Amino acid sequence: MKILKDQILDCNKSEIQNHKETFDFLSSTLDKKGHKVAEIVAKLSDFQVAIPSWALGAGGTRFGRFSFYGEPSSLEQKIEDIGVIHSLTQTAGAVSLHIPWDIPSDYKAIKEQADALNIKFDSVNSNTFQDQKNAKESYKYGSLSNTSKVVRDQAIAHNLEVITIGDKLGSKSLTVWLADGSCFPGQSNFQTALQNTENSLKDIYKGLPKDWSMLIEYKPYEPNFYSTVIQDWGTSFMLANACGEKAFSLVDLGHHLPNSNIEQIVSILMLKGKLGGFHFNDSKYGDDDLTVGSIKPYALFLIFNELVYGMRNNPQNPDLAWMIDASHNVKDPLEDLIQSLEAIQEAYAKALLVDQVQLKEAQLANDVVKCQEILQNAYRTDVRPLLEKARINNGGVIKPINAFRALGVRGQLIKERGKNTIATGL
Amino acid sequence: MKILKDQILDCNKSEIQNHKETFDFLSSTLDKKGHKVAEIVAKLSDFQVAIPSWALGAGGTRFGRFSFYGEPSSLEQKIEDIGVIHSLTQTAGAVSLHIPWDIPSDYKAIKEQADALNIKFDSVNSNTFQDQKNAKESYKYGSLSNTSKVVRDQAIAHNLEVITIGDKLGSKSLTVWLADGSCFPGQSNFQTALQNTENSLKDIYKGLPKDWSMLIEYKPYEPNFYSTVIQDWGTSFMLANACGEKAFSLVDLGHHLPNSNIEQIVSILMLKGKLGGFHFNDSKYGDDDLTVGSIKPYALFLIFNELVYGMRNNPQNPDLAWMIDASHNVKDPLEDLIQSLEAIQEAYAKALLVDQVQLKEAQLANDVVKCQEILQNAYRTDVRPLLEKARINNGGVIKPINAFRALGVRGQLIKERGKNTIATGL
Amino acid sequence: MKILKDQILDCNKSEIQNHKETFDFLSSTLDKKGHKVAEIVAKLSDFQVAIPSWALGAGGTRFGRFSFYGEPSSLEQKIEDIGVIHSLTQTAGAVSLHIPWDIPSDYKAIKEQADALNIKFDSVNSNTFQDQKNAKESYKYGSLSNTSKVVRDQAIAHNLEVITIGDKLGSKSLTVWLADGSCFPGQSNFQTALQNTENSLKDIYKGLPKDWSMLIEYKPYEPNFYSTVIQDWGTSFMLANACGEKAFSLVDLGHHLPNSNIEQIVSILMLKGKLGGFHFNDSKYGDDDLTVGSIKPYALFLIFNELVYGMRNNPQNPDLAWMIDASHNVKDPLEDLIQSLEAIQEAYAKALLVDQVQLKEAQLANDVVKCQEILQNAYRTDVRPLLEKARINNGGVIKPINAFRALGVRGQLIKERGKNTIATGL
Amino acid sequence: MKILKDQILDCNKSEIQNHKETFDFLSSTLDKKGHKVAEIVAKLSDFQVAIPSWALGAGGTRFGRFSFYGEPSSLEQKIEDIGVIHSLTQTAGAVSLHIPWDIPSDYKAIKEQADALNIKFDSVNSNTFQDQKNAKESYKYGSLSNTSKVVRDQAIAHNLEVITIGDKLGSKSLTVWLADGSCFPGQSNFQTALQNTENSLKDIYKGLPKDWSMLIEYKPYEPNFYSTVIQDWGTSFMLANACGEKAFSLVDLGHHLPNSNIEQIVSILMLKGKLGGFHFNDSKYGDDDLTVGSIKPYALFLIFNELVYGMRNNPQNPDLAWMIDASHNVKDPLEDLIQSLEAIQEAYAKALLVDQVQLKEAQLANDVVKCQEILQNAYRTDVRPLLEKARINNGGVIKPINAFRALGVRGQLIKERGKNTIATGL
Repeated sequence: MKILKDQILDCNKSEIQNHKETFDFLSSTLDKKGHKVAEIVAKLSDFQVAIPSWALGAGGTRFGRFSFYGEPSSLEQKIEDIGVIHSLTQTAGAVSLHIPWDIPSDYKAIKEQADALNIKFDSVNSNTFQDQKNAKESYKYGSLSNTSKVVRDQAIAHNLEVITIGDKLGSKSLTVWLADGSCFPGQSNFQTALQNTENSLKDIYKGLPKDWSMLIEYKPYEPNFYSTVIQDWGTSFMLANACGEKAFSLVDLGHHLPNSNIEQIVSILMLKGKLGGFHFNDSKYGDDDLTVGSIKPYALFLIFNELVYGMRNNPQNPDLAWMIDASHNVKDPLEDLIQSLEAIQEAYAKALLVDQVQLKEAQLANDVVKCQEILQNAYRTDVRPLLEKARINNGGVIKPINAFRALGVRGQLIKERGKNTIATGL
Repeated sequence: MKILKDQILDCNKSEIQNHKETFDFLSSTLDKKGHKVAEIVAKLSDFQVAIPSWALGAGGTRFGRFSFYGEPSSLEQKIEDIGVIHSLTQTAGAVSLHIPWDIPSDYKAIKEQADALNIKFDSVNSNTFQDQKNAKESYKYGSLSNTSKVVRDQAIAHNLEVITIGDKLGSKSLTVWLADGSCFPGQSNFQTALQNTENSLKDIYKGLPKDWSMLIEYKPYEPNFYSTVIQDWGTSFMLANACGEKAFSLVDLGHHLPNSNIEQIVSILMLKGKLGGFHFNDSKYGDDDLTVGSIKPYALFLIFNELVYGMRNNPQNPDLAWMIDASHNVKDPLEDLIQSLEAIQEAYAKALLVDQVQLKEAQLANDVVKCQEILQNAYRTDVRPLLEKARINNGGVIKPINAFRALGVRGQLIKERGKNTIATGL
Repeated sequence: MKILKDQILDCNKSEIQNHKETFDFLSSTLDKKGHKVAEIVAKLSDFQVAIPSWALGAGGTRFGRFSFYGEPSSLEQKIEDIGVIHSLTQTAGAVSLHIPWDIPSDYKAIKEQADALNIKFDSVNSNTFQDQKNAKESYKYGSLSNTSKVVRDQAIAHNLEVITIGDKLGSKSLTVWLADGSCFPGQSNFQTALQNTENSLKDIYKGLPKDWSMLIEYKPYEPNFYSTVIQDWGTSFMLANACGEKAFSLVDLGHHLPNSNIEQIVSILMLKGKLGGFHFNDSKYGDDDLTVGSIKPYALFLIFNELVYGMRNNPQNPDLAWMIDASHNVKDPLEDLIQSLEAIQEAYAKALLVDQVQLKEAQLANDVVKCQEILQNAYRTDVRPLLEKARINNGGVIKPINAFRALGVRGQLIKERGKNTIATGL
Repeated sequence: MKILKDQILDCNKSEIQNHKETFDFLSSTLDKKGHKVAEIVAKLSDFQVAIPSWALGAGGTRFGRFSFYGEPSSLEQKIEDIGVIHSLTQTAGAVSLHIPWDIPSDYKAIKEQADALNIKFDSVNSNTFQDQKNAKESYKYGSLSNTSKVVRDQAIAHNLEVITIGDKLGSKSLTVWLADGSCFPGQSNFQTALQNTENSLKDIYKGLPKDWSMLIEYKPYEPNFYSTVIQDWGTSFMLANACGEKAFSLVDLGHHLPNSNIEQIVSILMLKGKLGGFHFNDSKYGDDDLTVGSIKPYALFLIFNELVYGMRNNPQNPDLAWMIDASHNVKDPLEDLIQSLEAIQEAYAKALLVDQVQLKEAQLANDVVKCQEILQNAYRTDVRPLLEKARINNGGVIKPINAFRALGVRGQLIKERGKNTIATGL
């Protein structure tokens, strides 16, 4: 399935008049306040977020999974799905592969398919938290941190293989998420586990192509429920420093203890030049993997406020790898991703409206009330017309969810693929 | 100090043109979508929130308090302060007294002062969490739950006195917040403590005038750090049922364990006809008592969404007592309260924009994506012009913080009161 | 596989001397302090905890499951496994079936098998959180709370069927755990969902045999990550009251928000005569389902302290259904259950050592230091000799884990069943 | 007031027989298992914990403070109090001063008093979280992180003065706890605040005498409720590295987000040679400052397990500064401290019983069940006789709380000091 230009124009017909009116009004309002609307819209147009290859089917929990119809059952179909999202939103111009779930059988064909859809291959992800069929060694008691060298070596080799695969596709970074940890006090020696992990990461780091980077995730718990080797940003930061200048921390919004101030972590990592990537989702309790922006949109805005600040003021920090990492348990995965992209763009647009100069002045004057006013003024602005404009400029639709439904995408996919296909992934 | 009508008109002069444009545009947009803007504005105009008499000076923590200039040092000055806020915002038409900090010396005079400022006397609050000078018995080990009948009787008598005071002023409810609990395992017998509390509350209940109600707060911890007698809504609800039909639960937004779903609690209490009052503030960690809407504005919106639903669909539930209950540690208390009122009105306005009919349809169809769209469409709307309109209609200013500063209110108060006054309270 | 009496005597041979010495010493020490050791030991001997039929194989998380060797693949084998545990520990004299995973094919044979092993059929559990193959309706959007009557009716019918099955086996209660809730704000109407649930539960309640009870679990989140219909004890208590005198709340230790005071909930439910059952496990973060006592043994003791108090002082509360509800992700499930039983008995024994008379006196005197001393004196006592004695008196082994290993149970099970069997369950 | 040797002997008379019996029995039991009891007792005898000068009076919360009788009202009286505790427990051989609350007026006299009581001057604490009377600059908006250089300079100068005072008394380290942070989003620039803090700490570091160290505390929140500059161990560790080899992190048990794995943090800091000090207390919710061991004694044991491991295996880490940092709101402060010391020694003794060799073997074999058995075997041992022996060997009493009461210490203090004295502090 492919969305055609005509279909997009068609979808926009009934919306364009309303868009113009709201955009013009907002534009003139922002203009008066000194904002450069065209620049903001251009930044929104440029902002692209990777879709992970494992997030196009129904997700689940340990209590079960309710399947969804028309799921993609091959990498080709997954890229096709991303193509649909990208056509509509013009914000999903990248895919992030998960190995071994999505090893291409024909690299050339896959690259051509992706190229045609304007989709790049972003960071590749390794998997050492599950045992693959026919694997010699088990990761039940850890992978890169395992007390057994044979297991660590298998996990290192897998990561190196992932790099090789990614390299063929044009990826430029490896994302390492480790489930390694322990379920009970005493089960593991914290110091040995960390040292093993550091040594394993260094071995992988040595295998990075020159222009690649390595992104190290952290997470406090789950699937291990007593300790996790890379439990927080401090540990990830320490490991990235130990590995070298191409190693960075990756922040996943759901990977924090209750009440963490994530925006502060983001800000400090950028100050230190060590923020490499970002996984978007939302949560109320733990790593709930809900649609980004569905629970705490203001926190998302505050995080983007720091990201925008860092992108402007921290040249020591590299460009970031952006990815959505949610689980679609009760929604159509494609609609869920569209809502995610909208929420990300909204937070970004609002952050671009924060007057950093005024904010600094208010901060220096300890005018706390004014600091809040500045942030809230930006946040309270209805920026949807800016997002629409950015999409239109890129050739997308004004209202992606409406278009997705009007075009009958899911029905078409079910027709093509059948009801009972199952996507690889969690 | 008193804000004059002319001053208000003056403040609005420079803002009125911009207000009209944005209001007209929003109004016509909402109109097209079927919203009745005038009705919404009228509801906003009617919505009044009580200011507690203890929140007009600088707050603090156990680590100290940084004082603020020009604090009110008498009940008269406190009402004067509320008068200022109400003149500007037209949303603060009530005061909630805390006894014994604010016992009037001259009831008639105080009532006249409040009347002149259009301020009503809302729920009165008792205090049995501190020992007053010359008190015979100490509340160190509890008040209404104390193992000693003498102490319980003193606490009951105090509550009855608070009712008497409130009655003279026109209040119609008593708010009971109990700090009672324990700091260490074993310190207190949970069952005895609850039974004592229930009996004490019943004794107070008997003293309620016919048209009064009793509002029972709950809180999981602080100032007791192991257990609290009324630790959650379930306990408060149980006690309210035990007392009778004039007893209700009161929800304070900061009085919940991490990650609580407060909107669900609100909804269920309304279904059962037992939600009596509401204390507004915000928090990231515990009972932080920050400005409402400053940390989790979307959660505030979701709560208002349930409040609006309940006010429409739950005739079994009484009118609610609304109050701000924040601590102003680093902001000018009056500015902080103005920001609070704005955030409350914003959440209320957005909740009024939720299309409940469409939402119900989407819920019945299990169209989760659409349910989210409906809520987010309302939330993403910039409703500030509606708030401005509601204020103008009531005779207030368009931009309250700007007006507060332009009129030099704080400077004037310092001039009148001096720098080093201290308000009673925490 | 079956443990023979001779094997048990054999295991005890090398341990008995040491046991006698430590038991005699402890016994005389406790005697001096006024404890009646024989009575305590008798209570420990009598205390039996049900093993759930789904917990005898390896558990997992949404990230995967690492299988274990020699898992039981039929209900007969599961009961055989429980028989092994019970022979050794003499504490696991009951099984709690999960339907539809463990519907007996031959009721008479199963009952005879269980009888021979001294195992009773405790509370039966329904499952409406997963779709069974060939089910007409899906529980994706809820079961007893579903907006569709057809779905609710299917879920009610299933619960009634579970009662019928349990009745044939001699069970006397139905445990209802509902996953029902929502993943996103707006997805569900809190009030309707609760009312549907209440009505469905009432329909099930009507189907209860005369001498049966219904146990209603609560849980704040997972698998739904925004709201859960029965989110806390307050809601469960309200529903139990609405159903009638045979309906009770069931407390699962992992089903609480962070920092909840569970012992207080237990105490209050017993005061109200509404605590019906208990699920044992432990957790550091959420519903981690770790071995009970492995993370917070002191909290477990405090809970038992309330249970012992309630069993003595609250005749209004019924006998409780005790069950272990853990997930065995990295340990041999049988060893894990043995460790669980030991931890439960330990907490119970220590709670029996609390001097309730002295404690009450100290509480009345507000002697907080002494209250703590009393609890800690009991807790710090090494009660393992008492547990050993209770097991010996019942015909079990002194050191269950040692015996399990010395007897080569797991090896034997693998030999009998093969390596790659998989138990039904999560 | 001073405890005399004869009084101690007297107190022990009635307890010594029972002590001997239990000690001998335990000793022989441990002996059989290969433990060297005399060595363990010697380690317990050597273990000394500092008492902070601010913790000898009643503590409180922001909701109030219930005073206690006979509080010390001068530094001399505070040291006298510590002398009492140390005489009884032989574990409190150090005091940690808080400046400016406890600046000595006569250094020589104070040193002589402390010497006579066998009390050393441990780490000194600065205070830049409150404004002192007559201070030129206010710390309302931060101290070492303040945007104003003048304020930062005042705070730096204060810390340097604290070093000078400590140096005169024989202290060897400075503990810096910073309340600096912000209450609202936008109030402060995270990057600037951290950089200012780093620079200020470096300036203080320069003023350290050669043989001194600087201990940097971290804390996620309170008294600031949105962000704290040194929010976690990662930030503290980064700052300590930036300052130099004499700078270390200090862990306060209450200064973590919910569910943090503190023992892992302790272990990693020791691996990196950067754990400098430790503040003991306990908590259920936040920084509750309850008696250490009163809420989570097993977690305390697990932490000591890592401390013992680190002290044996991490020569790169310095000796630690141990201190109790609790708030005594409902107990006699001296009794509370005695209970604290007992709990610390208990956890230490149990950690010394962990068989590290066996544990390592079990870890290498991934024998999770055995790892748990090893830890629990140590933890379940009743080690009180070892603690008694260690106290006796040092000249202390067998049962400190009993002795404190039997000797009528508090009554004596009230007689000497009067009822209404108030100790400086929180």
